[in-house]
Amino acid sequence: MTQPAPPAPNQRVIGVFDSGFGGLTVLRALLPRLPETHFIYLGDTARLPYGAKSQATVARYAVEAARFLVSRGADLLVIACNTATALALPQIRAAVAVPVIGVIEPGAKAALAATRHSPEPSNGKDVLVLATAATVQSHAYRDTCTALGLRVEEKACPLLVPLVEEGWTDHPVTHEVLRIYLTEALAEGHPRTVLLGCTHYPLIAPAVTQALHHLGCEATVVDSAEATAEAVRATLGVTNGGKAPASFDCYATDSVEKFARLGTHFLGHPIPHVELLDLGG
Amino acid sequence: MTQPAPPAPNQRVIGVFDSGFGGLTVLRALLPRLPETHFIYLGDTARLPYGAKSQATVARYAVEAARFLVSRGADLLVIACNTATALALPQIRAAVAVPVIGVIEPGAKAALAATRHSPEPSNGKDVLVLATAATVQSHAYRDTCTALGLRVEEKACPLLVPLVEEGWTDHPVTHEVLRIYLTEALAEGHPRTVLLGCTHYPLIAPAVTQALHHLGCEATVVDSAEATAEAVRATLGVTNGGKAPASFDCYATDSVEKFARLGTHFLGHPIPHVELLDLGG
Repeated sequence: MTQPAPPAPNQRVIGVFDSGFGGLTVLRALLPRLPETHFIYLGDTARLPYGAKSQATVARYAVEAARFLVSRGADLLVIACNTATALALPQIRAAVAVPVIGVIEPGAKAALAATRHSPEPSNGKDVLVLATAATVQSHAYRDTCTALGLRVEEKACPLLVPLVEEGWTDHPVTHEVLRIYLTEALAEGHPRTVLLGCTHYPLIAPAVTQALHHLGCEATVVDSAEATAEAVRATLGVTNGGKAPASFDCYATDSVEKFARLGTHFLGHPIPHVELLDLGG
Repeated sequence: MTQPAPPAPNQRVIGVFDSGFGGLTVLRALLPRLPETHFIYLGDTARLPYGAKSQATVARYAVEAARFLVSRGADLLVIACNTATALALPQIRAAVAVPVIGVIEPGAKAALAATRHSPEPSNGKDVLVLATAATVQSHAYRDTCTALGLRVEEKACPLLVPLVEEGWTDHPVTHEVLRIYLTEALAEGHPRTVLLGCTHYPLIAPAVTQALHHLGCEATVVDSAEATAEAVRATLGVTNGGKAPASFDCYATDSVEKFARLGTHFLGHPIPHVELLDLGG
């Protein structure tokens, strides 16, 4: 197996992990914020989606991935996967000696900030979280938002990931599915903030905003990918832009050709090379 | 781990394998055809869906599953998974000493029979195969149908599995998605037969028939689950019904509670007990 060139000595290295290529929306948000940084992205595509799997299985997979990224020199890990963050963040933190940032706490804190600046609706919750069934079942967003003093409602949206992967990000079917899901979620009142709790959802953020508008809901849409990238920047204390742009390597545990092709849509940037990795699954 | 009661001595034992619970539509078709038989169903739910995975990965998983079923006493295996049949049937047959029946050849032969009895359209192919992206990319149905002298077209329908799993088997969105997929597939002419090349699709067979009718296509809809069950019965030479109804055990590699709950819709029958199995993935 050909190894990518190692990062320069003393260069900051950040590992980014997701079950697939959805986490590339987080890498996309990180790249412009952290110049002079080398990113190592690992998509565990052979075992995706994590969303349908049990806590024990997800934790085992995520810990394997985290150890791999640290072995490749990462001195900070971003768990760019809502399911892995929801089900396995404590296990990942216990397994590696570097800081680990998940997507849920930054997303919840961004929702708190947005809620403070949104007009108060006549009824309803502060935050509506849209996420996969597994993320909702974990109630990780609900618990984190509640700890911040927010009144939160969660809505599982199982069809949104396949619709994004079909490329139907601005398609009548996607608009109709969003109308159905959001009508159900808004039945008991309108939230002040809608938090996109899945790394696939930034690609349909405009469709979510449009559907909310059509339903008469003026909530602010918050993207946990952007929020997580901001949290990483703040953790590292990076305030000014460096000279050299950030660089990245990608690893996938299954078809590297498919990863490069589909991943490009999520990263918004061509992916010139993907390395195949066997995590033993 | 509590083991289910072993089958009676000399009782026929058939292993049925799928990546998830879709293959329960094949078990559903097998149960009434093969009384006095004990079935062992294995759903590799920890590693589903196989549809997005590479040939090497699918073959490794399927061989592990086949060896497990034989170790539990199966003297015939049904690979009730289109992806595993398309990508790994030779490897499974090489790995075990019992007969192995996949879903593709029975489906293709049933399409041949149906096509012979269907009116010839003015243009178009004999058979339109609807399947997942991975099954279509393998071209296993195309190759098998072509070898039978059929002119075949394949159409990948990535949203149908998530729609079935959402429970939207008779829902406006599913009817609209089918209209879109079938309009694309019928653009160059109408087929005589439509072959449902995915074990989830029997649950939307009425919706497929309805969508074809609305598009002015009178094709016969053939279900590879029913066709496979018929092939198993013919292979075993079972012609008359026995006295005792068939029995079954279910194993799953992830959440047994979810398997029992969702699987019931596919089997059309309650699943009283599911055993958790670790295949090491």
